[in-house]
Formats: sequence, structure tokens, C-alpha cells
Amino acid sequence: MANLIDIRSVTQLGNAKFPEYVQQSHSKLHNVIWRTPLQNIYVVKKPWNYHVRDAMVQFIDHIHHHYPAVNVIVNEDVADELVHEFSSGGCNDLDKSTKHILYTGKFGDIVDKTDLVVTLGGDGTILRAVSTFSNVTVPPVLSFALGTLGFLLPFDFKKASDTFRMVYESRAKALHRNRLECHVLDHYKHQGQVATMVHAMNDISLHRGSQPNLTSLDIYIDNEFLTTTTADGIVFSTPTGSTAYSLSAGGSITHPLVPCILLTPICPRSLSFRPLILPSTCHIMIRLSELNRNSSIELTIDGIPQRDLLPGDSIHVVSEKGTIYVPGQHEPPTTLSRHTNTANTNSKGIWCIARSEHDWTKDINELLGFNSSFQGKKQYHM
Amino acid sequence: MANLIDIRSVTQLGNAKFPEYVQQSHSKLHNVIWRTPLQNIYVVKKPWNYHVRDAMVQFIDHIHHHYPAVNVIVNEDVADELVHEFSSGGCNDLDKSTKHILYTGKFGDIVDKTDLVVTLGGDGTILRAVSTFSNVTVPPVLSFALGTLGFLLPFDFKKASDTFRMVYESRAKALHRNRLECHVLDHYKHQGQVATMVHAMNDISLHRGSQPNLTSLDIYIDNEFLTTTTADGIVFSTPTGSTAYSLSAGGSITHPLVPCILLTPICPRSLSFRPLILPSTCHIMIRLSELNRNSSIELTIDGIPQRDLLPGDSIHVVSEKGTIYVPGQHEPPTTLSRHTNTANTNSKGIWCIARSEHDWTKDINELLGFNSSFQGKKQYHM
Amino acid sequence: MANLIDIRSVTQLGNAKFPEYVQQSHSKLHNVIWRTPLQNIYVVKKPWNYHVRDAMVQFIDHIHHHYPAVNVIVNEDVADELVHEFSSGGCNDLDKSTKHILYTGKFGDIVDKTDLVVTLGGDGTILRAVSTFSNVTVPPVLSFALGTLGFLLPFDFKKASDTFRMVYESRAKALHRNRLECHVLDHYKHQGQVATMVHAMNDISLHRGSQPNLTSLDIYIDNEFLTTTTADGIVFSTPTGSTAYSLSAGGSITHPLVPCILLTPICPRSLSFRPLILPSTCHIMIRLSELNRNSSIELTIDGIPQRDLLPGDSIHVVSEKGTIYVPGQHEPPTTLSRHTNTANTNSKGIWCIARSEHDWTKDINELLGFNSSFQGKKQYHM
Amino acid sequence: MANLIDIRSVTQLGNAKFPEYVQQSHSKLHNVIWRTPLQNIYVVKKPWNYHVRDAMVQFIDHIHHHYPAVNVIVNEDVADELVHEFSSGGCNDLDKSTKHILYTGKFGDIVDKTDLVVTLGGDGTILRAVSTFSNVTVPPVLSFALGTLGFLLPFDFKKASDTFRMVYESRAKALHRNRLECHVLDHYKHQGQVATMVHAMNDISLHRGSQPNLTSLDIYIDNEFLTTTTADGIVFSTPTGSTAYSLSAGGSITHPLVPCILLTPICPRSLSFRPLILPSTCHIMIRLSELNRNSSIELTIDGIPQRDLLPGDSIHVVSEKGTIYVPGQHEPPTTLSRHTNTANTNSKGIWCIARSEHDWTKDINELLGFNSSFQGKKQYHM
Ligand SMILES: NC(=O)C1=CN([C@@H]2O[C@H](COP(=O)(O)OP(=O)(O)OC[C@H]3O[C@@H](n4cnc5c(N)ncnc54)[C@H](O)[C@@H]3O)[C@@H](O)[C@H]2O)C=CC1
Ligand SMILES: NC(=O)C1=CN([C@@H]2O[C@H](COP(=O)(O)OP(=O)(O)OC[C@H]3O[C@@H](n4cnc5c(N)ncnc54)[C@H](O)[C@@H]3O)[C@@H](O)[C@H]2O)C=CC1
Ligand SMILES: NC(=O)C1=CN([C@@H]2O[C@H](COP(=O)(O)OP(=O)(O)OC[C@H]3O[C@@H](n4cnc5c(N)ncnc54)[C@H](O)[C@@H]3O)[C@@H](O)[C@H]2O)C=CC1
Ligand SMILES: NC(=O)C1=CN([C@@H]2O[C@H](COP(=O)(O)OP(=O)(O)OC[C@H]3O[C@@H](n4cnc5c(N)ncnc54)[C@H](O)[C@@H]3O)[C@@H](O)[C@H]2O)C=CC1
Repeated sequence: MANLIDIRSVTQLGNAKFPEYVQQSHSKLHNVIWRTPLQNIYVVKKPWNYHVRDAMVQFIDHIHHHYPAVNVIVNEDVADELVHEFSSGGCNDLDKSTKHILYTGKFGDIVDKTDLVVTLGGDGTILRAVSTFSNVTVPPVLSFALGTLGFLLPFDFKKASDTFRMVYESRAKALHRNRLECHVLDHYKHQGQVATMVHAMNDISLHRGSQPNLTSLDIYIDNEFLTTTTADGIVFSTPTGSTAYSLSAGGSITHPLVPCILLTPICPRSLSFRPLILPSTCHIMIRLSELNRNSSIELTIDGIPQRDLLPGDSIHVVSEKGTIYVPGQHEPPTTLSRHTNTANTNSKGIWCIARSEHDWTKDINELLGFNSSFQGKKQYHM
Repeated sequence: MANLIDIRSVTQLGNAKFPEYVQQSHSKLHNVIWRTPLQNIYVVKKPWNYHVRDAMVQFIDHIHHHYPAVNVIVNEDVADELVHEFSSGGCNDLDKSTKHILYTGKFGDIVDKTDLVVTLGGDGTILRAVSTFSNVTVPPVLSFALGTLGFLLPFDFKKASDTFRMVYESRAKALHRNRLECHVLDHYKHQGQVATMVHAMNDISLHRGSQPNLTSLDIYIDNEFLTTTTADGIVFSTPTGSTAYSLSAGGSITHPLVPCILLTPICPRSLSFRPLILPSTCHIMIRLSELNRNSSIELTIDGIPQRDLLPGDSIHVVSEKGTIYVPGQHEPPTTLSRHTNTANTNSKGIWCIARSEHDWTKDINELLGFNSSFQGKKQYHM
Repeated sequence: MANLIDIRSVTQLGNAKFPEYVQQSHSKLHNVIWRTPLQNIYVVKKPWNYHVRDAMVQFIDHIHHHYPAVNVIVNEDVADELVHEFSSGGCNDLDKSTKHILYTGKFGDIVDKTDLVVTLGGDGTILRAVSTFSNVTVPPVLSFALGTLGFLLPFDFKKASDTFRMVYESRAKALHRNRLECHVLDHYKHQGQVATMVHAMNDISLHRGSQPNLTSLDIYIDNEFLTTTTADGIVFSTPTGSTAYSLSAGGSITHPLVPCILLTPICPRSLSFRPLILPSTCHIMIRLSELNRNSSIELTIDGIPQRDLLPGDSIHVVSEKGTIYVPGQHEPPTTLSRHTNTANTNSKGIWCIARSEHDWTKDINELLGFNSSFQGKKQYHM
Repeated sequence: MANLIDIRSVTQLGNAKFPEYVQQSHSKLHNVIWRTPLQNIYVVKKPWNYHVRDAMVQFIDHIHHHYPAVNVIVNEDVADELVHEFSSGGCNDLDKSTKHILYTGKFGDIVDKTDLVVTLGGDGTILRAVSTFSNVTVPPVLSFALGTLGFLLPFDFKKASDTFRMVYESRAKALHRNRLECHVLDHYKHQGQVATMVHAMNDISLHRGSQPNLTSLDIYIDNEFLTTTTADGIVFSTPTGSTAYSLSAGGSITHPLVPCILLTPICPRSLSFRPLILPSTCHIMIRLSELNRNSSIELTIDGIPQRDLLPGDSIHVVSEKGTIYVPGQHEPPTTLSRHTNTANTNSKGIWCIARSEHDWTKDINELLGFNSSFQGKKQYHM
């Protein structure tokens, strides 16, 4: 049975070739056209869930059977998991005549080879899959909902075979989602150099975490002091993330195509800290006052905890799309300089395969229960 | 056929006798005990709706058949409507052997005779029925939902016969709902005398209405200046009304047993006008500044428009239960003096027959969709 | 004395010549460059306020004295008012040696000749001045605050002479503000033809006004049903208007450069009607259900009441900048077809002369008291 | 110099004697009448602040000089600090002829002897001073603001001598503030027994803290399931605490005399979780679902972290004033049984010496900037 599956190095595959994204008139979506056939798909799943594992096995089997030229890439731990699964004969529905070849390797190598990302799981699965591509061009993403419906997950896994064929045959359409860049400057260790740069599909949040005391953050927009927040924290969100943490904290629901950054306070000690919608061209700088010396603050990006910020550290947040930066005393990180000439914007952001023009309208109604009216069931007769 | 129905003067009936409301330990409700048998019921319905008229005919027929000693009182227009209905033979389900006697008369006379109010319709029906008893003790209220479910309407009309029997046999429980008093002082015509006093079960709202300009109202609490609202308007609400206009304007949901007055601004031009919860012992005075001379403002009580307020007019709002008033330069209307000795509070407010201890918890969940979670329908398989 | 002033027809002036708006790198503003010297300025003031009239006289005198080649245009009623003012000698500070020539005429003629609009008054003054140019290119707008500070009014009248010189010498910078278009379709009278099209600098609001009953509006985005609002009303706002009515109704504060449309409900009967931020490319259609037959709803644009909407009427709202419209059963008004080819966007929207890059940051802090912290005055010693 | 100060055991003092609180008609406050002269005052201060320490020395000196019969009690660490302070001669203003006797001892002993608590510092100082008296009757509290103004601190330290005399001479008035009781049941270790009971003057909050995942809590009111919160957390607040964390999380501002419990969610993943106002007679039970097995949740009372809650643990929250409890399957802690007969309520809650009837109105305006209007500074002339 073990010969049913064969694990190979992802480095053997040809380099990634991305599709072209063709704007359509009267449409919010772009057509996703493969100029050369789709070759390497990277299939990512939610961990520790046997329903999802079964679905993955089913999906891979389907691909191997119907698209023999398509190579399937998986993470190393998933490859191990599947070897066990295939050889244990746990998957009765499998086409036993097909030899299953899976490619795997280090994240850096996977990233170089992936033409299309396929996710099976929840919103967290897509957030984590996409975070693998933090500093490079992200391939188009096809997401299937498994278990709970997610806000970033347009497709029902029940329709996976039709959906994949549509993508393969260049009949799919994609929505472009912008990301935020979070540049962290470590005050003490790096003399103002950027220590890390992480992309956010949803949001960047700063929070007091377990510390009982409120934290004070100084916020600058385009180098101009905006305000000091005394609050549990603050969240900077993309329109995509407007239905995630920002929503819980009181932010407006924002369509993914509005080029903006949401600044939403988390439990501010102020009656007048209304959420803000900032242009995507702006540059935001956040700093812990050196006064709160013994304090630290938690930084979380797309739900993934980063290292705590210490007094003197600062964060620069910009949209991937490019920023207007007005020079001044608070220097932006040097990595931001490239933002002055914003080249090919198609190579930025995340192209998510979409069901229809109206996914957003449907989802805020069906998933979030937007403006649900008070009950009025009819009832008569004594 | 016309002899099926007989209209008599309500003045022929014995005077109203109210039940006793007996507090139970460990309960939010009071038992409603008739020391002498329930005699006169005043049945009120939503107008212009033939479903509701049919239900009323059905209900009256049921009462006459099963409770021959109980007298049914209706409004004069309803009496006319029913005469026509009964005589036209429109009601096929009627027990033709029963002679239907209905009592009617002027509102003042009806009020004197009513032991129990029964409402058939929506929330508006109960609000209008209860407003008839604005300056006298209100009999207990039994409300049936017809058509849409309402927030003030615990009982399904389908269970009307069982429900009425429970009330008749002193097995019912009632929730006590406090009202607000709205004293209007007309500046010009009455030299500071109270022109009108109206009770509010839900709320008292002041609104710019159709005037494009914002209105400024000065608000005093216990004779101390609180604030000037520049807004579309303001609503003063009972806890009962906290799920009505106040909710739409951003107010908290308040349990009917919290003795308080909600002050909720309507679209204020301020970032910091958070809704307030005031003690039921407080005295609120609202005044249009004489500066806005050519302006007026609309006053609405429980959804019923009152005469517009003019500059110089003032309104005094207190809870029925009695108020602490700290004397000072802005004299309260003399009618408020009686509030110093708050005698029998059982004779105040509205006793609403309740389904169970937990009506409120159930209703905010089932009717208002309180804290409804985001969708998570399960779905699997390709 | 009467010979001090001379009123002429505006038609005698040369046609309007607009400046060029030159994008600067690293800047949110455009330079306002007059390729030919600025000639005709249209000075508009707040009515019925003698402080403002004095300021206007002062300003005109200053222009005539220092810029003899510049022609001053005023409204007809203002011309009359000023004739009286100048001849009555009420203005002692006037340079009596200067002969004051004022141009006036019909709105349509003024519109054709104006190179620059100067407003003296409040936010309402600029809203009304700009509404004169509803269907044509709007000249750049220079606004002076008089009396109360306004949110749309960057300049202090005390600095009017320096400020005007800066504009005249092509040293000024301008912020571009987008408008909304409101197309009203009259169901009964015009067989689906657009009766009116009005531009909104701030907002388009629909409100129940004085009617006690809630109004239900059906809202479609890009031809897809979004929701039915049961509410006092709804406001569609530009980012400019995000600090006006939308703010009072709970909307987010939005930077004027975010290309979007705010949809903010006014007192909705729903717990889950969060404000929405829609892309400026979207097409919004609002319709009163034909069910509410005897009802009407008030339409107000930038604070100016329009005719009431009746059941069956519909409204189409788009951004001036152009819209994606996905065709379908609810036809958009034919006037919208031109939106498919969005030509020169510089000729659209409103160019407002700005103080600095950071007007917005300053204004939300200083005018709106954004995130003002709770008091903490120092105090010591017994 | 060292002989200037003498530290003695608090056990030498006579037992605490509380004043009588006499209701006044037309007043929200009670008169504070000492039937026997005030003897022992417990002076508490904010730690680690030399301004506050100076003020304390000044205050004690004043008391010893002017009220020789009054004994001053301090905490043990404060006694040490003051010994050093007095002997170092750091306090030049001291009356060197007075011998300073300070009483100190264990918290339990201090509690038994204290007639009046005097706090010097901020809101945190009063919260921590009062928490010392968690399970016994709290003496009246006189609070002085030092440094920043606080919401619970009516008196300016500059007026400390006059203020203290007013209290001493039974001319002071007090506001009664209710507390919440938080009963924690440890599921595993104590077989459903109450491990701890802590009083809250402000609030009881449950929060995910540093854990990235949302926590789900089941909430029951009077034994009826209310809702499951999926959120950062939840806060249960007294009216006193309504201006603290609950305010930041979106709760209404509630007058301290409204007998209620505020339930305010912290960043809920729901569009429809409006804050609730519950009656002070209700019993609230909160439970972590056993499903979130590897999770824990942080419990904080009045800003003081308690031990984390684990799955299966539950919390019972009631008002000090007594609760209606409807028996059922989820047993309340046995300590709650006494709530059925709510004896002397004057011995419960906290009596805070107040400036005037209108402290609250003043404070929400002056400290919180309630409904502050948008700027409108006058400015004229070119
Ligand atoms: N109080 C709150 O609402 C908090 C929310 N979050 C959000 O969780 C996100 C991370 O998600 P998970 O890894 O799945 O964490 P998780 O497992 O803690 O779930 C967060 C929830 O948010 C949903 N979600 C994620 N992205 C969304 C989006 N763009 N729109 C609507 N719903 C969305 C998920 O489906 C899930 O129900 C963060 O980016 C942050 O926005 C994180 C902490 C607190
Ligand atoms: N924007 C809004 O939410 C507005 C609300 N109202 C409310 O309408 C009330 C009058 O009701 P109707 O005569 O039926 O007018 P209506 O026919 O205009 O209906 C108002 C709605 O509020 C509901 N309602 C009434 N009292 C309620 C309560 N205590 N809790 C929950 N829902 C309640 C009714 O069932 C109905 O759905 C007023 O007292 C006022 O509170 C009035 C104007 C505007
Ligand atoms: N409840 C509310 O807040 C209401 C607000 N309005 C707003 O008033 C506007 C018309 O203004 P006026 O003719 O001056 O009427 P108005 O004299 O009634 O004043 C409205 C107030 O809004 C201010 N304002 C206007 N535009 C603003 C902006 N873009 N940002 C910040 N503040 C602004 C004005 O300075 C004034 O204080 C409408 O476009 C609408 O947005 C209209 C009705 C109700
Ligand atoms: N995001 C937020 O607003 C948070 C608020 N808190 C509050 O802090 C309280 C503890 O206070 P501290 O020990 O001083 O902590 P702290 O030093 O962290 O300060 C909290 C702030 O709240 C103020 N405050 C405290 N009680 C208040 C009241 N009843 N009304 C108005 N303001 C009040 C204090 O003056 C201080 O400015 C807790 O009971 C909780 O309510 C705690 C955590 C987060």
C-alpha cells in the first residue's frame, strides 16, 4: 500500500508562473487568465482536524486523477500526515490505481514554485497560508470553507471539483485585496533599523494583553501628531479585516475595494475616540512613550502574536500600494523609500478567487446578519 | 340576526375593582389575586385590520359563552364595527344561540368601570390602550400578539382561552412597569402653569422633525444644569421603552425592573454624548432656549404626536414613582409637589400579565436577536 | 457718495479660466497655478449677519485697492445690500477714493464667469455657494471662517489679505473633495426619467421627518439587493460629510482623500446595522416600497430640503468620479451612462484652497475634540 | 529628632464606631452624624510618589495639631516610610513641638478600629483602600484628589482642613455606593464550594488577556441562559464603575443611585451585543464552557488581577443589596443564601463623603467632557 504515495522535493518543480489579471469593464473583479497551463498548486489545510484531512485527501485524489499534469505541493508536516493516512488505508474512497506524488520542502522553496494556493479550513487557514508569502508576490488563492463558513472563504467544498475546473480553464474571476505592511523598529538593539517587516491581510493590533494598566501610544499620520491613545489597544485594519477585530471594536464595515486603512481604538478611555478611515496613501507611525518605561505592549498580526514592543520601539504602518510620505523629523524606515515609485501594483496584494460580483453584499447579510430586522413571525387564531 | 347583539351603556356596570398584587419571594413577578370575581373587561384592538377584528369577535364570543358573568366593554367605534360584523353574519364560527351584549361609552366612563384591559394587536395597541388611563390607576393588562410579535405582548392569541382562564382564576402573574410623567409648561399662554400632563409607558421624545436645522435644548437634572443638546433630538425612556426608540438611537437595553430613566440623544453633534441612565428619583427639566425664537420642536409620547413646543416652553419629566426635587430657581410644576409623599405605589405603573419569570431574557434573544453569533453552518464533502 | 459704487452686468466679463492643479510628489495637495492671471472672483457671504457684511465690504475694498485688475462678482441681493451699505456711509474704513465696481447677474451667468469662489461665513455658506455650480465645473474655493470656526473653512478672516495674495500668486495648494450625484427618478410623472440631478458636497439624507412612523427603504448596491432599512432615515455621505450628519448618526470619521461613499443609518430598528464604507465606484439605488402607499419621505442634500419622495420614486447615488455599473433589471438613469468613460477627473469635484498638508489632523483634534482625554489638572497643597 | 514620631500597635485603640447616616428629604445624600466623637482615622495614600507623601505628612501634622483626640492609623509600610521622613527632617513645615503618634498593625486589626478612611491619591488609591474592607462593614470614606483629578475623589487637597472639620463636626453628607459581590467557584479543587468572595466597587472583568483566541463564556441570569459571549471579554460593573472600564467598552454612563448591574461586552464578535442594564436584584452566573479545555481566562476586580479562571470554574455575581434567586439546576454558592433576608442595608456598600448634591452632574461634564460641543471660537476682522 505504501507505494500508493511518493514524496518528492519541491525543488524539482518548474518555477512559479502567475496568471494574468484582466480588468473587465463594469466589474469589480478581474479575469484570471493562465497564459501557460496551471502547473503547481500548494494545498494548505487547517491542522488537527480529521474532517479537513479527509477533505484534503479527497481533493488531492481528485486532482491527481483528473489533472495528471498538475503537481500538488504540501507542507512537510502535512506530507508526513498524509503518508500515514494513505498507507493506513484510512481513505476508502481513494482511487487505488493512481499513484500519488506529493511535493514538499522548505517554505522558501515552496514559495518559489507555487502557481496557485488552495486552502481548506477556516479564515485562520487562509491568513496563515498567505503569511507564508509575506515578502514576495502572492499567487492567486482559492479557498474552500470546511466546517464553519468563513468570511474570506467563498467556496463550498462540496463544489470543489467544478470550482477547480473553472480556475484551471481560466474562467475564474478574482477580487484584489490589499495588505498592510508593518515595519517594526527596535529602539535599543538596532539603532533605528527595521528589525522586521510583516504583511497583514486582516490587521495589526497593539494591546495591553495581561497587564492591568492602560497603555499610552503616540500616533502620527504622515509625520504629524494625531493623538495619544489611552486604551486597551488599537487595531489598524485593511478593508478585508474590517469584519474581523475592527468590527468587534466598533469599526465600520468596509468594502474590500475601498483603498484605505482603518484605525479603530480598543476600549479607549475617551468618549470621543471615533474610528477613523485613513487614505491608503498615508504613513502611520506608532510609538510607546519612553515614560512607560517598565511596560511593554503586545503586537499581533492577523491573529499571530509577534514579539512584544518595548518603550522606544516604533511601528510604521503603510499600505502595500504605496505611500505619500512627507519628510520630517521622524524618519520612516529606509525600506519605505521604494514606496515613492509604486511600480506594478498587480504584483502586490492578494488575488482571491471569487464566486460573483456580489460576494460581499451576500456575506455581510448571510454571515454577519447585517441589519437583521426584529422578529415578526405571523401567528393567528385562538 | 340583528338581535344577536345588544349595545348598552358602560355606565350601567359596577365600578372597577382591581385585583391585589402579591409579592412572591424569589420572584420578579407578583401574583394577581381577584378578591371579588373579575367582572368588566375592556377589549381593545388594532384598527383597520380584518384579521384582528375576526380575532376580537372570536374572543368576545368565547368570553360570553364561557364566562356569562363577565361584561365586555369596547370603544364606541368598535361597537359600531361589531354590530355590522355580527349582523352581516360575517362571522361563521359564532355561537348563534348566545346573545352578545357589549358595553360602551365615553372614555372617561370606560375608565371608571374597567377591571382588566385586554389588547389584541401590536405594541402600538397596548401603548394606545394604556394611554386612555393616563391620569388614573391602570387596570392590569393582558396582551395578545396578533400578526407580528411585539415586545410588550407576551401571549400568543392561539392560547387566548387558557390564558384568560388563568387570569380569571387568580393564577396569573404580573410584571410591574413604571411610567414617566411628562408635564408641559406653556411659557406664553399659561404663565408657568402646567398645560398638560401625559404618562409615557415607552418614551417621551423631542425631535426637530422636518426642520433642517439642529435644535438646542437645555437640560437640567434636579435643577442643576446638565448640558445643552445640539442634535436631531432626545428621547427620555422608561426601561420598558429601552428596546424601542432609545435602542435605535444607541441606548442600552434595560430590564423593566431597574428603577431608572434613560436619556438617549438622537444624532447629537458631539462625539461625547454617551447615553445616560438616571435614577427614577430624579427630576428632569428641558427648555428650548429663547434664542431659537422662530423655531419649534416636536414632542411625541409613546409614538403619539403632541403639540409642538415653542421657545420658552419647558417640559418636566419625572418617574411616576416619586421624585426627589431639590428646590431652586427653576420651579417645578406645582403638580409635582405630591411626589414628596409617594403613597401607594401599587396603584401606579402598569401591571402586565406575564408568561414567566424569564420573558425578558427570552424576548431580547428571540425578538431582538441579541448577541446573535456570526453564521457557522456545517458543510462538508466535495 | 452714491457714486462710490457701480453695479454692472456680469455678462460683460471674460469667460472663466480655471487654474491648473499640479500634483506634487509626497503631498496630499495640488499646487494651484494660474496660467493666465486670476480675473473674476465670486464673493459669497452668509446672509443676515452684519458682522459678515462688514467683513465682505472690507474684503472687496481690499481687493479693489490692491488688485485693480480683479473683478468682483456678487449675488444680486448682495449687490443691492452693498449699494445701500456703501452709500449710507456705514463703512468708515473704506478708501473713499476708490470707485467700487461690482458685477452681478443671474446664477447661470455668474457661473460662466467665475475663476475663483471666495466664501465668508460658515460651513453652510460654502455648501450653498458650491451648490450653485451643481452641474458644471466648480472653480477653486477659498473659504474664510467668520464667527464660528467651520470644518470646511481653513482660513481665518484676519489673514485674508495674505491668504488672497498667496492664491493670486499661484503659491496656494488645494485639496480635492469629491461629490456625490443624486439622481431622482419620479415614478409616476416621468416614466422612469430623471427629474433632477443634484450634487452633494456633504451628504444626501432621507428621513421620516415629522411622520411618526418608521420608513422602510430598499437599498441596492450595483443592482444587488443589500438591505431594507427600518429607521428614522439614512444618510449617504462623502468623506467630506463624514464629520457632518454621518458623524452624529454614528459613522466613522473619514479622510477626504479616501475614495468612498459612507452609508450610515439614522436610528435603525436593528441591533446590527453597522455603518458601511462603500467604494466610490459603486452605484446605489434606493426605493420606497410601493407598500407604504400613503407615506412620503424627506430628501435633503447638504442641508437643503428637496421635494419629498413618494412610493415608487427611486434615487440613484453615485460618486462624481465614475461608477462601475453591472447591468440588470433595475435600470440606472440614462444620465449615468456617461460614467463608463470617466474623462478628465480634474474638472470634477471641488478644489478647496488648504492651509497645510495636515489640516484634517488639526481639525479633527481642534474642532471636533477627537479622542480628548479625561481631565487631569494638577493640584497640590492643603 | 527621632523622638518626634512614635509608632504604636493599632490594637491599643478602641473598636470602630460608625456614624449614623440620616436620610434627608429632597436629597440624594445622607447626613453623616457621629453619635460619639470620631476617634480613629485610617489614612491611606498612593505609593511611590513623594508629592503624595508630603501631603500625607502635612495632613497628619494638621490632624495631630488640631484634633489631639483623633488617632491616626497607617499601613505598616507607610509607618516605616514616615518614620524615615519625619526623622530625616525632610518636612520643614512640621510643627516640631507636636509629638506624632501613629498606629499601625495587620490589615485585620486596622479594619476593626477604623471609624473613617481618608485617602490621598487617585481613584486607584480609594479602590485599594476600600478593598481592605472587602468582607466587613466599610467605614465612611473621605477622599482627596492629589495630582490628577479622579472620578471617585470629590475633594481638593487644598481644602483638606475645612473638609475634615466638616466631617468631624457631623456637617458632612455622604453618597451611598453599592458594590458587587464576586463569588468564584473552583470546579476541580473544591467540589463546587466557593473558593473566594471579593467585593467590587467598580467592576469585575473577564478577559482573554494575552491569549490570541477569543473566549466563550456562558452567561445565566437568575438561572436562565442569557447568551454565550464570543469576545475579548466582558465587564460587570456597578453604576460607580460605569465611568471606568464599562465606559471604554461602550456602556452607558449610570448615576450611582440607580440600583443596577451593568453588563458590557468587550469587543464582542457580534453586531448585536448591546450593553445591558440589569436589576440589582438579579443573580448572574458565568461559566467557561468545558469545551475550551486548554484555555483560561483572566479575572480582574477593580483593576486588581485575581487568579485565572479555568474551564469548569464558575462565577456568581450579585449586588450587595440582596438578590432574588430562582432555584434551579445551577446552584448558587451557599454564601448567597443569606441574601434572601436583606437586613440592614446601611451597613452595606460604601458611604463616600460628597461635595454637593450635584457632584455627578459636575463630574461627567468637567472630568469626562460629556457632550462637549464642537469648537466655535469667535474671530473677526481681516
Ligand atoms: N475580539 C475580537 O473580535 C478579536 C478578533 N481577532 C481577529 O482574529 C483574526 C485572526 O483570525 P483567526 O486566526 O481565525 O483567529 P480565531 O480563531 O481567534 O478567530 C477569529 C474569528 O474571526 C473570523 N475572521 C477572521 N478574519 C475575518 C475577516 N476578515 N472577516 C470576518 N471574520 C474574520 C474567523 O472566522 C473567526 O471566527 C485577527 O486578524 C483578528 O482580526 C483577534 C482577537 C480578538
Ligand atoms: N427610529 C425609531 O426606532 C423610532 C421608534 N419609535 C418608537 O415607536 C414607539 C411607538 O410604537 P408604535 O406605536 O407601535 O409605532 P410604530 O408602528 O412606528 O412602530 C414602532 C416599532 O417599535 C416597536 N415597539 C414599540 N414599543 C416597543 C418596546 N417597548 N420595545 C420594543 N419594541 C417596541 C413596535 O413593535 C414597532 O415595531 C415609540 O414609543 C417609540 O419608542 C418611534 C419613532 C422612531
Ligand atoms: N443631527 C445632525 O448632526 C444633522 C446634521 N446636518 C448636517 O448639516 C449639514 C448642513 O450644514 P448647514 O447648512 O451649516 O446646517 P446647520 O446650520 O444646521 O449646521 C450644521 C452643523 O454642521 C456643521 N457642518 C456642516 N458641514 C460639516 C462638515 N463637512 N464637517 C463638519 N461639520 C460640518 C456646521 O458647521 C454646523 O455646525 C448637512 O449637510 C448635514 O450633514 C443636518 C441635519 C441634522
Ligand atoms: N480600557 C479601560 O478603560 C480599562 C479600564 N480599567 C479600569 O481601571 C479601574 C482600576 O483603576 P486604577 O486602579 O486606577 O487603574 P489604572 O491606573 O489603570 O487607571 C484606570 C483609569 O480609570 C480611572 N477610574 C478608575 N475608577 C473610575 C471610575 N469609577 N470612574 C471614572 N474613572 C475611573 C482612573 O482614574 C484611571 O484614570 C478598573 O476598575 C477598571 O474599571 C481597567 C482596564 C482597562
